Formats: sequence, structure tokens, C-alpha cells
Amino acid sequence: MRPPWRGRYPRSVTFPVVGMVGGGQLARMTHEAGIPLGIRFKLLSDTPQDSAAQVVSDVVIGDYRDLDTLRAFARGCDVITFDHEHVPTEHLRALEADGIPVRPGPDALVHAQDKGVMRARLDAIGVPCPRHRIVSDPADVVAFAEEGDGFPVVLKTVRGGYDGKGVWVVDSAEEAEDPFRAGVPVLAEEKVDYVRELAANVVRSPHGQAVAYPVVESQQVNGVCDTVIAPAPDLDPALALEAEEMALTIAKELGVVGHLAVELFQTRDGRILVNELAMRPHNSGHWSMDGAITSQFANHVRAVLDLPLGDPRPRAPWTVMVNVLGGDYPDMYSAYLHCMARDPQLKIHMYGKDVKPGRKVGHVNTYGDDLDDVLERARHAAGYLRGTITE
Amino acid sequence: MRPPWRGRYPRSVTFPVVGMVGGGQLARMTHEAGIPLGIRFKLLSDTPQDSAAQVVSDVVIGDYRDLDTLRAFARGCDVITFDHEHVPTEHLRALEADGIPVRPGPDALVHAQDKGVMRARLDAIGVPCPRHRIVSDPADVVAFAEEGDGFPVVLKTVRGGYDGKGVWVVDSAEEAEDPFRAGVPVLAEEKVDYVRELAANVVRSPHGQAVAYPVVESQQVNGVCDTVIAPAPDLDPALALEAEEMALTIAKELGVVGHLAVELFQTRDGRILVNELAMRPHNSGHWSMDGAITSQFANHVRAVLDLPLGDPRPRAPWTVMVNVLGGDYPDMYSAYLHCMARDPQLKIHMYGKDVKPGRKVGHVNTYGDDLDDVLERARHAAGYLRGTITE
Repeated sequence: MRPPWRGRYPRSVTFPVVGMVGGGQLARMTHEAGIPLGIRFKLLSDTPQDSAAQVVSDVVIGDYRDLDTLRAFARGCDVITFDHEHVPTEHLRALEADGIPVRPGPDALVHAQDKGVMRARLDAIGVPCPRHRIVSDPADVVAFAEEGDGFPVVLKTVRGGYDGKGVWVVDSAEEAEDPFRAGVPVLAEEKVDYVRELAANVVRSPHGQAVAYPVVESQQVNGVCDTVIAPAPDLDPALALEAEEMALTIAKELGVVGHLAVELFQTRDGRILVNELAMRPHNSGHWSMDGAITSQFANHVRAVLDLPLGDPRPRAPWTVMVNVLGGDYPDMYSAYLHCMARDPQLKIHMYGKDVKPGRKVGHVNTYGDDLDDVLERARHAAGYLRGTITE
Repeated sequence: MRPPWRGRYPRSVTFPVVGMVGGGQLARMTHEAGIPLGIRFKLLSDTPQDSAAQVVSDVVIGDYRDLDTLRAFARGCDVITFDHEHVPTEHLRALEADGIPVRPGPDALVHAQDKGVMRARLDAIGVPCPRHRIVSDPADVVAFAEEGDGFPVVLKTVRGGYDGKGVWVVDSAEEAEDPFRAGVPVLAEEKVDYVRELAANVVRSPHGQAVAYPVVESQQVNGVCDTVIAPAPDLDPALALEAEEMALTIAKELGVVGHLAVELFQTRDGRILVNELAMRPHNSGHWSMDGAITSQFANHVRAVLDLPLGDPRPRAPWTVMVNVLGGDYPDMYSAYLHCMARDPQLKIHMYGKDVKPGRKVGHVNTYGDDLDDVLERARHAAGYLRGTITE
């Protein structure tokens, strides 16, 4: 088996070039994971100040929505992958037509870009989802509600939402008017009676190898991921297996290459339903940087290069990730003294982003044998960095 | 406690800039360790092709032997540290006089630059070394031999040697002529009857905090480090403690800031003697990247910034590092398929360097419960990458 770039550089002894579209923290951490593999990174970033642009040597500043920019960027890349899912599907098809491997490819990625397409496809392959339907106006939302258990109903624009944006929970026809104002198709979903959120992270390579990380519990605050516990505590092993198999099935059936995060609801009556899909390294997998034998970022790089995947198993009984959100105090560096002195095992991951209230600017990982202790350490550090804990 | 750069950027919310002199693999891996901390790296590199220059965004190409170049580079850095020990001592003093923190400082670093100064200082603080003396000519080497057990005698130029270069083992006055030709002072040492080589790695910060990594066994082949086993197998705990304390004493007495590697002989009669010192992350500490809670590179960054140090303890019972040397086959990337498929837990660290026979171009780490298995996996992978194992 010969990797795809070999034919392009027959006399070269250099390692492949991975083109990463998007300069956010996922690109930054993917670059970090690529360094030890000798992989060369080329970054397409909106600005030189973007998180990844600060640490990558080969950066192109440009707009990923412009096909000419993408095409010029892709020249000299052996494969293109993504920090986010916002590149227009037709541009990805154009790059593929130019002969550039795009991973994940447009046919897979559309399921992470368009919630309507995603729901239809998951229905078709028999993956359990919340009851759902594309709705056309507030009256249709009322009809959707009456077909089930009534209000509240969850409305989502099919494209463009993230971290709670583009999502509404409505109790009436009047409240259902906002989502239609953007002119984007709106998906209605039942408000699931869930006990917690889980995430199943898998990585799949072009030749079909796939690995599953342990299913994690993901705790949201105001619609934003706050805490991830790996593995999910007190999860029935049969349900964990079902979630892993579900994620592997989705990856295979949708032709995903790279990392796939499947966000799940664990319902009060013991089922799991798919909430969202993300086809890139994901916040629910950040624990793996310090908690797994192979991190999600390293495995994403290996997958997009069609290299054999690394072992996804945990290195410690418990790993906890807590996001560091921006607070009122912009200087997080001075908090290092306290955090590092208090917990010499703490793992800090900062993204080099300007601190703005509520913005994800980093995360911390802790691991160990005692979940209470591991949780306390991560929460304390994240709170101290944010400024909500001052002692 | 306020970090030293705070006064320089009173209104800045940015993180400190670490200036790294030298673009080799140690700089590359230090940069990798600095990314999650949000530390900004500025690199002074000989060429844009150097190992670290490939992956650092802020690179100055220049000659570290030129004081003006160093001074211009140091502007905008909060602290200067090093990939190697070759910067002239007087240049470091000039930078310090300019107000730039240099870590380790010239008074410490000279002990890693000049073996004569090092031996004199270790004698003065009572650290056991091989019998040694500065010798002036071949006749003086004969005299040195006769003062002890006779030939062979080890001769070393006091400056400029590494990886076996600048070292001679001589059996007669005639053989002792070569080392004097360079015009550099020559140190004579007894040929120690050792059973193995060990290394004690410690990290010390400006305010005096220090941590000790477990003492490792370092196996050399043709004067070049080949395999490191952490911790050193079958090492008497009292001897391990003595080695750690010795390294901590040296770090303190010499005023080392950052990583200090103390290469040791374990003698047949059960003593440990200091062979060499290195004041930077060191090959004998590469295992810590995957095998310790905090890697030597992360702790070096923390030390030079006077941040609290991270836990140096191992994460697995055994970790093995084997260097990947260049072989006859220049394309190491295609070997990834076999190596990764054979061992999904393997950790590869490549430096982006051109493959030349015998050159250190990377290393692999393995860890686990069974030393024989861990050793076999690392040796197989390194051999396969080099091309000496083909199945």
C-alpha cells in the first residue's frame, strides 16, 4: 500500500503536507499532535492572530468561502482537512475534482453541516434520533408539537449553529417565529427527557479502519460544553457498547474520514438518541490529549493520511476535562502560579485567544483514580483561570 | 510573586515570549511543549530548514556566535534559553547586562560548556567524579596514567565535544597526540570500570524549586545514546536516591535554571560517578514525553519562566526510548504503515531532519507493565524506521 502523496513527490524524502482549513484551537492542537509525526502543516486562517496561526510556521491568510483562495491554498497540500465545518460543500467538490484529497469528503461532511440532511440519513440507516421533522412556519411547529407530547419543542436552523447558537426551545406558536426569520430551513425536534448527555468519539480512515474512544459524559452550561468525564460514570456497559457501535456505524455509513463526535442524549427510560454530529476533533474528545494512549488529534492526523490508527484506550481510570471560559479578568497567565503550585499534575491547554466573557479560551485536564478528586482539581483550575474562584 | 516580564508589558494580556537559541530537535520539542501553555516561542536558527524552524512561526535566521544577532533576537523576548550549549559565555553575560534573563545563566552554563571547569567545580562541592586532571602534552598523559592504574586513559577536549566527538580512549603516549592538535585544553580521566551508564535528570527554577525524574539507564552504541530505560532496572533504591540527590545538589550549587541532565557511570564496585553534565532537555529525558506526568520539555519551559514545576513521576511501570538513527534508506515515512499497524501504542517522534547515516533523526517511546515487551516494541520500531529491520 502506498500513501497517496507518494506519486506526487516521487523523489522527495519529505513528509506529507496536511492542509488545515481554519485557524481555531482545533487546528492549533492538531498541529501540536502532528509535530512529533514529522507531518508538515499548512494553515488557511482568517487572520494572523487566530489561535493556530500563532504556532504554525506555514500560514496562508485568506477566506475559506472563496474558491480561488481554497484552490491556491490546496496546491502543495497532500490532503485537506478542517478546523470547522463551514466550508461550502460545492467548494469541497471542486477541490476533489482538482484531485485534492478532502477528508472528510463533502458527501460525509454535509451531514455535519446540515441538520436536516443528517436527520434524514440517520433515519435511513436506523440510528435512533429524537422525533423530528422539517417545519415550514410557526403553525407547522404547533402541528409538530401536537403530533407528539406537545410543547416545548426544540427548533434548530439546519445550518450555521454551534454552542447553542441557532437553537431555540419554544413553548408556543408565538415563540416559534424567531427561528424562521433567518430564511434557513428549520428543523423541529422533540424536547428529549434526558438524564445526561454523552458523546461517542470515533476515528475512521479511508481504508475503513476505525477506533472508538470510551463514551464520555458531557455536561453543558448555558448550551456550552463545560465538563467532560471519561469514561461516563455509571454507564451500563451494554449502553456504552451500543453508543460506540452507533458511532462506528454512522462513521462507516456516512463515509466519514477523520474524527467523528456523536453527541448523545441518555434518556430517562434508558435509551440513547443522537443529538448532533461533528466531523473534526471535538470538545468532548479534548480529555484524550492527556487521558488516552492516542489523542483525538493524533488519530485525526493519522486518519486523514490513511495511516494505521493509534490505540484510543484511556491511560487512567478517570480523566476530566473542564473548559476555561473567558471571565472579567483578561490576564490568565498570572493564574498559572496558583494553579500549577496547587496541582503539579494539572494539564493546562490554552489557545492563545483574547479573553472575552464566555468565550472558550482553553481547557484543563486532570486524571487519576478518584473521580471526586479529579473533578475537583479540574473545576478548581478552570474556575481559577476564569477568575470565578480566587483562592 | 510577579513574573519578571510583567513589568515590561504592564498593559499587555499576552503570554510571555520564550526566546530559544538553536533550531535543533530540542527546540522543536520544547516548542511543542510550550503550545498548550500558550507560551509564545521565538527561535534563533541557523537555517530555515532546521528541525525547530520548520514548526515555529516566529523564526529569526542568524548566527548565535554573533553578539549583535543575539542582541537583536533577544529584543522582545522575556527570557532566553537554549537548544545547545555553544553560545559563547561572554555573549550571555552581555545579554544579562542588557537586562535579558538568560536561563540557564552563563555562570551555570559554563559548567556544561567546559569540562575542565565542570570537574573543578564538582570536586569543590564533593560530587564523585572519575579521577581526572588537565594534561598538557602526551608525556603528561603518561604521568597521569602512572599516577593511577595505567593505560587506557580517556582524553577529552574541554570544549566542543558531544556524542563521542572530542573524546579519545588512548593506550600509549603516541595515541595521546591527536587530542592536543586542536589547541584546546585537554582533560585526562581514568577509564572507569562501569557496569552501565545512568542518567539523573532534574529541573530547577530561579526561585529554587526543583524536581527529580526517576534515574534512568542509558545504553550507548558507538558513543551515541541508543536506548533509555525508565526507571533504571534493578537499581538499588539507595543508589537511585543518591543519584537524584547528587543531581539536585549540582543543580543548586551551580545555580542551574531549567533542565539538568547528569550522566553517570555505575561502577562495578557499586559507586556512581559523574560523567557529563547537560543544561538543557536531554536525550536521556525523551522518555518523559510519553512516560512522565510532566515531560522534561514542559518542565524546562516552566522553569525558565519561573513557574511552579510539574510532577516528574512516571505514568507507567516502564518506559523505553530508542533513538531513530539515519540508515541507508532516506524515506522513513513509508515505514509508518508497518510500525503503526504493528504497535498501536507506539509513540513516534520525528525531528524533520534529513536522513544521514548515523544521524539522530527521531526517537520512539513505548511504555507498559512488561519491560521485555516494552523494549522489544521500541527496538523493533526504531530498527524498522532506520531500515535495519525489514519485517
